Amino acid sequence: MNLPKKVTIREVALRDGIQGRKEFIPTEVKIRIINAIAEAGVPRIEATSFMNPRAIPQTTDAEQVMAGVERRPGTSYECLVANLKGAQRAADAGVDAMCLVIAASDTMNRANVNMTAEESLAQVPAILKTARHANIPLMAGIASATGCPYTGQVAQDRVLWLADELVRLGVDELYFADSVGFGNPAEMERLVTLFQERHPEMPMGVHIHDTRGLGLANTVACLQAGTALLEGSIGGLGGCPYAPGSSGNVCTEDMVHMLHLMGVETGIDLDRLIDAARLTQDLIGHPLPGRVMQVGKAFTLHPIPEALLTPGGRMVQNLTR
Amino acid sequence: MNLPKKVTIREVALRDGIQGRKEFIPTEVKIRIINAIAEAGVPRIEATSFMNPRAIPQTTDAEQVMAGVERRPGTSYECLVANLKGAQRAADAGVDAMCLVIAASDTMNRANVNMTAEESLAQVPAILKTARHANIPLMAGIASATGCPYTGQVAQDRVLWLADELVRLGVDELYFADSVGFGNPAEMERLVTLFQERHPEMPMGVHIHDTRGLGLANTVACLQAGTALLEGSIGGLGGCPYAPGSSGNVCTEDMVHMLHLMGVETGIDLDRLIDAARLTQDLIGHPLPGRVMQVGKAFTLHPIPEALLTPGGRMVQNLTR
Repeated sequence: MNLPKKVTIREVALRDGIQGRKEFIPTEVKIRIINAIAEAGVPRIEATSFMNPRAIPQTTDAEQVMAGVERRPGTSYECLVANLKGAQRAADAGVDAMCLVIAASDTMNRANVNMTAEESLAQVPAILKTARHANIPLMAGIASATGCPYTGQVAQDRVLWLADELVRLGVDELYFADSVGFGNPAEMERLVTLFQERHPEMPMGVHIHDTRGLGLANTVACLQAGTALLEGSIGGLGGCPYAPGSSGNVCTEDMVHMLHLMGVETGIDLDRLIDAARLTQDLIGHPLPGRVMQVGKAFTLHPIPEALLTPGGRMVQNLTR
Repeated sequence: MNLPKKVTIREVALRDGIQGRKEFIPTEVKIRIINAIAEAGVPRIEATSFMNPRAIPQTTDAEQVMAGVERRPGTSYECLVANLKGAQRAADAGVDAMCLVIAASDTMNRANVNMTAEESLAQVPAILKTARHANIPLMAGIASATGCPYTGQVAQDRVLWLADELVRLGVDELYFADSVGFGNPAEMERLVTLFQERHPEMPMGVHIHDTRGLGLANTVACLQAGTALLEGSIGGLGGCPYAPGSSGNVCTEDMVHMLHLMGVETGIDLDRLIDAARLTQDLIGHPLPGRVMQVGKAFTLHPIPEALLTPGGRMVQNLTR
């Protein structure tokens, strides 16, 4: 299997994973989770979003989160923005990078930010200028790249047009979002491959939701097509208010577990990441969907049944023939 | 992505999916579930197992299940056996095919049937003779092909040796079982590829557990390597008493949903299969892990938010550019 030697993990639980929750998560809880994820060695963390507080009440504390996190050296503390005002707030708050999301479906983009995709694109130069002025990169995310929750399939030509425009406008990096889990491995591999053919030098990633159980299958397909950045949500925390039927992103620690089994490096300490997932589950206060934190990593062993042991407590067997 | 045009689905919920449950599922419930799965067009169903009733109390009604199911034309009603006695019972009960499982790990094989793998292999000629006499095929399953719950990693050489022996002894078909979800896509693709190089004409499949969320990712990897038979469990029903830490097989309807999205044919009516999964969940009496039956198939749409509609109830957008 043709896989990259190393990938970059970008954690989005503190943005995508929580924005759909009604109960406000206290700022200090958010900060504790972010710090634990950073300590596990996750290199990039989307720590918050700078949005209209009426649209996303959960991240009204964006400035306080950015001021409160530890700013561990080597970790990039990033954020989501939806317009120029958010970008200015983010720059003022001292983020290490910002990400602007535009949906390929106009309906979804209007539901998100009350603009068509073209209207959102028109804001990119000013947002880019803000980022350049703050000396930080601007990433762009293409939402509904595999389909829109309101209107269904979105042509890959439309998605690639939006990607082309974003590259042309000068964003530093780009990702495709399987926002509501409509994507499948064959389609996502094709999308990534087509993008890479058009823009071989452009750093790109994927943001996948596990709505229909396809999260890791889609992840592997995108990796095989050359994706080098993967977004995930610790514990699988998630659900999005503007994408009905959605569930959480791919669970970060389950993804890292899979990558390490396949020999793909992430630079992350998986045991500490699993600890961070358990901490998140404890702080959030209900079971999260992550599997590895429940059942243990691959090759977590169980005691050999007593009946199979010799009186000396050993058993003879051949595992390697 | 290099995928087969068509695959065969083999349903194992009524064997692997239920054998770990303490409460006995009434025979008529088992029969109703089997009939519903058959009516959805699933071509092969492992309807029961012919085991020592003390070892697997859940399938003490194997004969009654086989006598009670509808025997829909075109559906193969199959079973699991662990030894010659089971094979004779299965043949007498009129199964359409039988499957003998041997674990590549001696420890797991002894935990399952109190024999080493070689001792199990020594039974194959007599079991094969029983199958031939009944004019039905004998399938062989290699358990712990990706690792043993008691002893950990099992060398692929050992797994391939067991596969070679089974082919040499004349079994009609073979599958590799990721019994406790230790497998990963790269490893399983390698195993299937190595087997296919050695035995290009031998029908082979995979039996994957979703213990660590890797079920569909492993499935796609095996498909890319040329696997043409996939086992699944309706609703993701599952867990195995001899494989601690295990959870259910890959959820059949979630797998079929993925295959159809990718254009891989199964001959199954997915909507009826989802209905069968919901029936199974109702009859079993608690939520099952299957995702598609909860959230709907890909491109299940949600109403466009009122605020986005024009007074005429329509909205203008461009999805295809």
